[in-house]
Amino acid sequence: MSNELNNNPHRRYNILTGEWILVSPHRTKRPWQGKTEKNSAERRQEYDESCYLCPGNTRASGETNPQYTEPYAFKNDFSALLPDTPEEKVNNGLLKAKSEKGVCKVVCFSPNHSLTLPLMETEDITKVVKMWKKEFRELGSMEDINYVQIFENKGAIMGCSNPHPHGQIWSHSSIPTEIQKKSYHLKEYWKKNKRSILSDYLTQELELNKRILSENEYFVALIPYWAVWPYEAMIIPREQHQNINQLNEDEEKAFAEIIKKLTIMYDNLFETSFPYSSGIHQAPTDGAEYPEWHFHMSFYPPLLRSATVKKFMVGYEMFAGPQRDITAEMAAETLKQLPKQHYTKQ
Amino acid sequence: MSNELNNNPHRRYNILTGEWILVSPHRTKRPWQGKTEKNSAERRQEYDESCYLCPGNTRASGETNPQYTEPYAFKNDFSALLPDTPEEKVNNGLLKAKSEKGVCKVVCFSPNHSLTLPLMETEDITKVVKMWKKEFRELGSMEDINYVQIFENKGAIMGCSNPHPHGQIWSHSSIPTEIQKKSYHLKEYWKKNKRSILSDYLTQELELNKRILSENEYFVALIPYWAVWPYEAMIIPREQHQNINQLNEDEEKAFAEIIKKLTIMYDNLFETSFPYSSGIHQAPTDGAEYPEWHFHMSFYPPLLRSATVKKFMVGYEMFAGPQRDITAEMAAETLKQLPKQHYTKQ
Ligand SMILES: O=P(O)(O)O[C@H]1O[C@H](CO)[C@@H](O)[C@H](O)[C@H]1O
Ligand SMILES: O=P(O)(O)O[C@H]1O[C@H](CO)[C@@H](O)[C@H](O)[C@H]1O
Repeated sequence: MSNELNNNPHRRYNILTGEWILVSPHRTKRPWQGKTEKNSAERRQEYDESCYLCPGNTRASGETNPQYTEPYAFKNDFSALLPDTPEEKVNNGLLKAKSEKGVCKVVCFSPNHSLTLPLMETEDITKVVKMWKKEFRELGSMEDINYVQIFENKGAIMGCSNPHPHGQIWSHSSIPTEIQKKSYHLKEYWKKNKRSILSDYLTQELELNKRILSENEYFVALIPYWAVWPYEAMIIPREQHQNINQLNEDEEKAFAEIIKKLTIMYDNLFETSFPYSSGIHQAPTDGAEYPEWHFHMSFYPPLLRSATVKKFMVGYEMFAGPQRDITAEMAAETLKQLPKQHYTKQ
Repeated sequence: MSNELNNNPHRRYNILTGEWILVSPHRTKRPWQGKTEKNSAERRQEYDESCYLCPGNTRASGETNPQYTEPYAFKNDFSALLPDTPEEKVNNGLLKAKSEKGVCKVVCFSPNHSLTLPLMETEDITKVVKMWKKEFRELGSMEDINYVQIFENKGAIMGCSNPHPHGQIWSHSSIPTEIQKKSYHLKEYWKKNKRSILSDYLTQELELNKRILSENEYFVALIPYWAVWPYEAMIIPREQHQNINQLNEDEEKAFAEIIKKLTIMYDNLFETSFPYSSGIHQAPTDGAEYPEWHFHMSFYPPLLRSATVKKFMVGYEMFAGPQRDITAEMAAETLKQLPKQHYTKQ
């Protein structure tokens, strides 16, 4: 890429969604008098009696958590989707609606209230990966479940209502917008090239080596060329798997390892417990074949310049499209140079 | 609509973007232990010497604001887009980028630092409408400007870096994603029916009278059936105008009046200065004909249950698609019943 473009306002194309992102690299010096967040570096205890996710505690539903010692999944007590929703439709002029069936689960990553993924041992993150596989398999094989969205909201500024290390899974009968977009673009490429677009993209990124954050035998973590959030990153398996259930034991471990490495970089960036939403995008579970799919995990972290100043996706971004200031290359460069040990353990 | 569906999880279709929204009305009783915001009800002075938007003050660029007494627009000192960006392209395998030219402006709504739109007189908001028209006309007629996005970020939680009443205009050569989506759906309907989809939608909503918030001779404010944000609203001109420049004097005033009414409802809801991002969507300015376009103004406010608890568009929403708890009808019902006078003046 020419250096010139890199310093001037430009738009970049997202090969997975077909959408463009506005990049304004010259704007990094903008002064900030706006909102700042609290630095969330508080130390938590390993067990919190008021936490409804800790082992042995009773939840709002009246159910009591078992004394779990490994990742623990249960049905969300305030599920946004329910399995027994009656089938109904609205088709009244320009008003269109449909009932939606689904199952929402919560996955506690660890019994230890004080941990987060970057602070967990690789071996314990591997257990989380195994749990995701199991849930994906079980939910995905249910009749009304055609898509399984695994995600984590980390940190209060990402709407996380409880700091106990946990993620969620929302699964349902329709194929969500974001997956429809990606399916379309993955498929277009597949039809033409009989190859996964993400495999080819990975080959190109590894050759250029400008946005790679970390790699191991089975996975690569990088800042995608079209990143929207300041330090947005993506973990891509080298092998084209349609979904996480296809991971073998070595790959599970390698996946856990690279998640740990990436989230340590994040925490080390501003020496704070780095907030983000992460999610795994994979093939639908409606029984159709998805030879074009290549699962990947993305991280959308909002922090921009410090533990207390975040990027807002507001006015222009809501009404027109995403905008960022630092380039993907600047973000990769910064993250790569950080120490590999978690800052609390250095 | 059947009452049943209204209480059960369902998806609604957005006729303007072609996307679906997940609605979970049964979930309104979810407990909240998460992040709360500061209530921003502080009273501000009419002039703040440290505010770079107040009349007579000097901005970061070194320029001094005139002693303006009416809405005042100037080039953003930290513009995300620049008019003289050299034309360049990246087309390297799967990496695609293009330079982008544009102009970013700031519009001060009033010289009075302590005001916001709901606190301004209709006659002064009318002057803001006139200023938007003028800017739309001038920017839109520039050679490289094919789209003019007028918007406001109000409140610190909406990334607003200065409480002085102001909005922004970002204008540029490409047509943004959100406009492309809407153009497509407006056009599809136009081709079939030779009518604006928004005119027909308005007719239907007025007849149903379940989501109407306020109306006058020229404009209607309503909660769209497919609203995403808890109290999202839309102002639609009864007459099909492609852009705001087509408003006559009476319509300008009616537009100002309905903006005032809607934003007063917002402030009165939680008795706070209600944060939102608002934006005007209108036809591109690339010289083509847009007979299908029908301009409208939308408000995306994040507050959910109080001045301090907002809705987060995070994990599921980022990776799958938007989700809301209260229905559009519940939101409309609540807003409609509020006193019509601003709470600080009651
Ligand atoms: O230009 P401002 O007011 O400094 O910035 C604000 O609005 C912009 C346009 O929506 C956003 O990109 C920024 O994240 C937000 O903080
Ligand atoms: O289910 P939770 O953790 O209470 O809620 C959180 O995640 C959900 C899924 O992304 C969001 O809809 C909520 O806004 C957020 O607060």
